[in-house]
Amino acid sequence: MNINRTYNNLSDKVVEELIKIVGVEQVFSDDEKLEAYGQDETEDFIFKPAVVVRSENAEQVAAIMKLANQHHIPVTPRGAGTGLSGGALPVCGGILLSMEKFKNILQIDTQNLQATVESGVINYIFQEEVKKHGLFYPPDPASWGSCSLGGNVAHSSGGPKAVKYGTTRDYVLNIEMVTPTGEIIWTGANTLKYSTGYNLTQLMVGSEGTLGIITKIVFKLLPLPKHDLLMLVPFSSAEKACEAVGATFRAGITPSAMEFMERDAIDWSMKYAGEVNFTVKPEWQALLLIEVDGNEMDLLYKDCETISAIMAEHGCDEILFADTADQKQSLWKIRRKVGEAVKSNSVYKEEDTVVPRASLPVLLKGVKEIGKRYGFKSVCYGHAGDGNLHVNIIKGDLSDEVWERELPKGITEIFELCKSLGGTISGEHGIGLVQKGYLPIVFPEYQMELMRQIKRVFDPAMILNPGKIVF
Amino acid sequence: MNINRTYNNLSDKVVEELIKIVGVEQVFSDDEKLEAYGQDETEDFIFKPAVVVRSENAEQVAAIMKLANQHHIPVTPRGAGTGLSGGALPVCGGILLSMEKFKNILQIDTQNLQATVESGVINYIFQEEVKKHGLFYPPDPASWGSCSLGGNVAHSSGGPKAVKYGTTRDYVLNIEMVTPTGEIIWTGANTLKYSTGYNLTQLMVGSEGTLGIITKIVFKLLPLPKHDLLMLVPFSSAEKACEAVGATFRAGITPSAMEFMERDAIDWSMKYAGEVNFTVKPEWQALLLIEVDGNEMDLLYKDCETISAIMAEHGCDEILFADTADQKQSLWKIRRKVGEAVKSNSVYKEEDTVVPRASLPVLLKGVKEIGKRYGFKSVCYGHAGDGNLHVNIIKGDLSDEVWERELPKGITEIFELCKSLGGTISGEHGIGLVQKGYLPIVFPEYQMELMRQIKRVFDPAMILNPGKIVF
Repeated sequence: MNINRTYNNLSDKVVEELIKIVGVEQVFSDDEKLEAYGQDETEDFIFKPAVVVRSENAEQVAAIMKLANQHHIPVTPRGAGTGLSGGALPVCGGILLSMEKFKNILQIDTQNLQATVESGVINYIFQEEVKKHGLFYPPDPASWGSCSLGGNVAHSSGGPKAVKYGTTRDYVLNIEMVTPTGEIIWTGANTLKYSTGYNLTQLMVGSEGTLGIITKIVFKLLPLPKHDLLMLVPFSSAEKACEAVGATFRAGITPSAMEFMERDAIDWSMKYAGEVNFTVKPEWQALLLIEVDGNEMDLLYKDCETISAIMAEHGCDEILFADTADQKQSLWKIRRKVGEAVKSNSVYKEEDTVVPRASLPVLLKGVKEIGKRYGFKSVCYGHAGDGNLHVNIIKGDLSDEVWERELPKGITEIFELCKSLGGTISGEHGIGLVQKGYLPIVFPEYQMELMRQIKRVFDPAMILNPGKIVF
Repeated sequence: MNINRTYNNLSDKVVEELIKIVGVEQVFSDDEKLEAYGQDETEDFIFKPAVVVRSENAEQVAAIMKLANQHHIPVTPRGAGTGLSGGALPVCGGILLSMEKFKNILQIDTQNLQATVESGVINYIFQEEVKKHGLFYPPDPASWGSCSLGGNVAHSSGGPKAVKYGTTRDYVLNIEMVTPTGEIIWTGANTLKYSTGYNLTQLMVGSEGTLGIITKIVFKLLPLPKHDLLMLVPFSSAEKACEAVGATFRAGITPSAMEFMERDAIDWSMKYAGEVNFTVKPEWQALLLIEVDGNEMDLLYKDCETISAIMAEHGCDEILFADTADQKQSLWKIRRKVGEAVKSNSVYKEEDTVVPRASLPVLLKGVKEIGKRYGFKSVCYGHAGDGNLHVNIIKGDLSDEVWERELPKGITEIFELCKSLGGTISGEHGIGLVQKGYLPIVFPEYQMELMRQIKRVFDPAMILNPGKIVF
């Protein structure tokens, strides 16, 4: 990757200033730490920063940004480091600013169904905490056990429940952020409706730590649904499975999850999922994992009946029905383990394609055809209800040379296909480092330049998270 | 209002160029048209433009913007002219660009539950059209019979159903816009999830025609709920009514409307609502209009029972229950007529305050206290479920001098109260012309400057809708 930016090196004087701001025990420059913080979950990239700094409040972050501006040193903010597009990689070195100490859930407001959190709170911990109050925070990325809420906001993260409940974007009411120049602002208000000037809150969501550093978030919450039911539906045709997805929504049912896995994904996941209580038949080419939730068990059973009928019309095999917690966990495990399984199995490249839901069969077919043409296999799975298909392109036994040469061409064709179907190149992972070269497929240069200029408005010195999205 | 901007006057040459672009029959400079297009629904403002131009496609709009840049002439886009913050007023003269001919519903995609429309389509017409396909477009501002979808997007409009279904913002997937410099772009993709660079779609929503001219919109649709029920709940205490609102949500019920009217609003509306089938008792101080919707009638009745119990706990009078179309229409009429009634009754100033829902009683009490202090009456009503209270401040028999002098002070205090409660100065009407002076109450200068610079990125010559929001 060529990042053509020139910054100053970190001097001892700046390190001393950093120590003054956060304390000596929060500044690291040993090789082990630099390496650990120099990677996230994006393929096998490592970019070592010059220094790792752990701050614990917005005032410290503001002081760090002012210092960095003064000395023209790049700063890369990092949540929990679970990103898949390289958003937290310090590609230009400089200061790696870890937000891991922003761990406090500041308020759960049961009167207004809202919560205020610091940005480093782990998604799962937050979900469990609001549950204790009978409340519900739906966004649940696959990495929910380890990803931070600030990272979720920065990437507009989704997850299985997005199909019914929307993505992180839909739950963010207000953000406390530190601007790249070191100002602390709240982007909006703690209200459900908002029409008060340009919506900086929504501009921050999905900006991947390039426009500011998120320090606090006010989230909207929902009442916790009382029940859910889960079905695993096997198909002997992946395309038929995709078609059944669209038919379900057209029947007026909105499942709380509608996940798709093709055969390879199932096989790979099964190896890593440990013990599960069912056997995969050889003729299965795809699985749909469908969840419905709500407060009335009768209604949920009725929805499941309707869904079963639709699935049968599309030629599914026998449906596996989970209504105990154990059964549900076992089925979810298969879906949640796919990413990990692919990662351990081969060098790969993960794409986060998204199209209008009904175009999913066309996309899937296209991905396979393009793969054949360029000689690579792919493992496809993801959030079928949202038209969000994760395409894991597998190196397998391709030579390094073929892989390097052919992969970008294949990806380009896949993304061009997405665009032609009304879709785009990332639904929930973001652009970060690894997709930025493909951005011109979906945006004309004029629009890229608009984004670059918006970046400049917030960050005139261009020091915050350089090398990402449009820079 | 002082708008300190200098633009060139419209020359005959420019008028000739405009005629070349849109045809002679779409360019107007007669006084009657200039006056008609020089106002919207904001109080009694009139700002006559130099010329009115009706375009009918994005290419024409782009050509007009290029021409306007070349000659440094301001352009004010106008949807249906139903705005309440003066967003469509051509305060600097120049070209009034009417979007009323953008009237086509281009596609209703029943496969993906999406629709593509031109921006001048009237909200109600769109709602009725998608209904024919069993689909549902929830945003329903009070002016739905005459407001345009482009205007709704520009103002992030709400309406009664926002409490369950969200505002216009939540239904916008993608926008075709003409930038102030005359480029035609699509802001995003037609997908339910999106994490592909800065979200220009969401930045456009609520930007009030200052960052670009919306020409097409792709909306998300929902399956149409089969049934609804409506209840009118009288209270002898307005504050008790507000408290009952919060209690309903905490019980896990999300009504599809939760509207509030205080006594004065009821009385005034009754005069304008024509025949209605109930009598307002003298002891009533407030009404709640509560709607629930869904597919299962049994459940709706059950919700109504729960709601009734909560209302009773808060000391309501006898609940009026509407389950025929006629009864429902009669009750809705009372709510929908308030704005009109106030307008015909007195000189007034409408504010669009919004706070976290549970703070509504505090806000209402505060508004009354502030009014007492400055000597003005107010009529309050609005979307209680969203914490969005429309405060109509009434001139009544105040002298012009007192009105001019005291009103801004009173409004400032009301807005400061909103801010202190975690709220802000507009929930769904926008800032436009009439609230821009109050914006510094909620934003520090640094943040105002961020917004100004974002404006400059899109509109370097500052010719599109000048005098609004931050300029």
